[in-house]
Amino acid sequence: MELNVSDIGEKDIVKYILSKCNTITPDDTAITKIDDNSNLISTTDMLIQSKHFPKNMTYFQMGFKAVTVNVSDLAAMGAKPLGFLLSIAIPDSLNFSNFKEIIDGVLEACEFYEIPLIGGDTNEASEIIINGTALGTNEDSLMKNTYKNNDLIAITGNIGLAALGFYSNDLKYLDNILKPVARIKEGMILKENGATSATDITDGLASELHEMFNGKGMLIYEDKLNISDEFKEIANNMGLNYLDLIFNFGEDFELIFTIPKDKVKDLEEKLDFIIIGEINDSSEINIKLANGKIKKIQKKGYNHFKKEI
Amino acid sequence: MELNVSDIGEKDIVKYILSKCNTITPDDTAITKIDDNSNLISTTDMLIQSKHFPKNMTYFQMGFKAVTVNVSDLAAMGAKPLGFLLSIAIPDSLNFSNFKEIIDGVLEACEFYEIPLIGGDTNEASEIIINGTALGTNEDSLMKNTYKNNDLIAITGNIGLAALGFYSNDLKYLDNILKPVARIKEGMILKENGATSATDITDGLASELHEMFNGKGMLIYEDKLNISDEFKEIANNMGLNYLDLIFNFGEDFELIFTIPKDKVKDLEEKLDFIIIGEINDSSEINIKLANGKIKKIQKKGYNHFKKEI
Repeated sequence: MELNVSDIGEKDIVKYILSKCNTITPDDTAITKIDDNSNLISTTDMLIQSKHFPKNMTYFQMGFKAVTVNVSDLAAMGAKPLGFLLSIAIPDSLNFSNFKEIIDGVLEACEFYEIPLIGGDTNEASEIIINGTALGTNEDSLMKNTYKNNDLIAITGNIGLAALGFYSNDLKYLDNILKPVARIKEGMILKENGATSATDITDGLASELHEMFNGKGMLIYEDKLNISDEFKEIANNMGLNYLDLIFNFGEDFELIFTIPKDKVKDLEEKLDFIIIGEINDSSEINIKLANGKIKKIQKKGYNHFKKEI
Repeated sequence: MELNVSDIGEKDIVKYILSKCNTITPDDTAITKIDDNSNLISTTDMLIQSKHFPKNMTYFQMGFKAVTVNVSDLAAMGAKPLGFLLSIAIPDSLNFSNFKEIIDGVLEACEFYEIPLIGGDTNEASEIIINGTALGTNEDSLMKNTYKNNDLIAITGNIGLAALGFYSNDLKYLDNILKPVARIKEGMILKENGATSATDITDGLASELHEMFNGKGMLIYEDKLNISDEFKEIANNMGLNYLDLIFNFGEDFELIFTIPKDKVKDLEEKLDFIIIGEINDSSEINIKLANGKIKKIQKKGYNHFKKEI
């Protein structure tokens, strides 16, 4: 029987590409040495209207987000922005004023992240497709899995807010899903102040912890996740498990990073962050629940193609 | 009345973006200084199955072409390849074996052009969409319009062959439309051997001559265009004007370039090329027909969105 890509799933599709190609670094971005002291950092991400843009998202927000998703990967490497390429396809029936709103969103994001729009491509398609490419530089990169035993695990802000923006009717959470902001300055500060690894958690915290796994163990404490009663109540009202939302919804553009204990004090002077756990030698990815029990954190996260069975 | 993008046309859409943004160099690629001696050259191009891939194109050829269209822009700048990013969306009903053929095409092209695949993104869409980003470096760039009076105008190979591949049933021309090859080595040789400007002619020769226009004049000689009797006959059989095919069909991945007369001899030792005309001070873009008459070359070329009236 011929297999379709839906039988294979995105992770195995990516594995196939990696198996055929030894020139890809499997991290948040590509890393290309350009001289003795610096790397070119490059990343590309495609957003498709029917898959990635909520119905209530404005055209401006679509443009802004197309920059954010790419810049977030630069941030995860501790890179300094260099330039952004915009490849955009739109239906020929789109109002020109709406197209202008998308471009305004792209340009405002480029200004916000201090990453100049340097080129691109325009095309016609049956729906809006925006493929961004973000370019940056760094001296060396914040990889995903270069932490050491006893390093602390931390995040640059609260998680679960995008899930609230998606599930609640409260307007105050809406921007978290409609106009998220990438942590580009935070990434550079982390790199300069002793962080030992980092990645963004847009695919969900559980999925990213598994991506970071290097054979050592990780322990996350529920009590340190800053989960508000309001959050639990909203999840409950929707019939959802609040920890499932925290670990598996994703779309929060925060960075998760590791840092040696003796570097925490210095970093606290430069950055707001929340310590949520630590690296240990258990070889397992666990959570210590509020009730004291320890449970494994399963890998879920978003997977294109693969259908839930 | 609200205008749609189809009322505006691609060229004016691009003009709108350029009017809002002073960080784009309007040439074949973006150019970003990375140190005293080198530029990062970057370009991005999206191919959409229903718009860009002929029905008889194989999956392998789709992958190969997605690299070619991007590398061709590096070639037009005289750049050395550095890396390729692949952003691909496919329907979940696509056979996995067909997906593997696309990837094989991408990887074979990357090997052929000596441009490593360094990263990418995978997505699900209703049809195949391949967005490539090609990165390269150079010391200085072969711009489109930096030629001088009396420079000669030349191309790196015969034009019109893609049109033959499209319109004729002769299998020997099919590769010109299904598996075109970018002139990456030729671009670097041109840059190192005195060419004063260059661009690729994938949008059609007439369109590119107008893109190159800098106020000086250009004269192209029909007699120098190497148009075979077979070409004229095929055009005639299709009820098409052969000069229209030569000037406006596009899809030939040759470079058009300018070179001072005193550099021609040296270049001839390193590269095959055809001199088709010269820069003059007429301020017009003209062709001298085989019958001796001089006519203006109109700008046509492909324009997404804009409908013919």
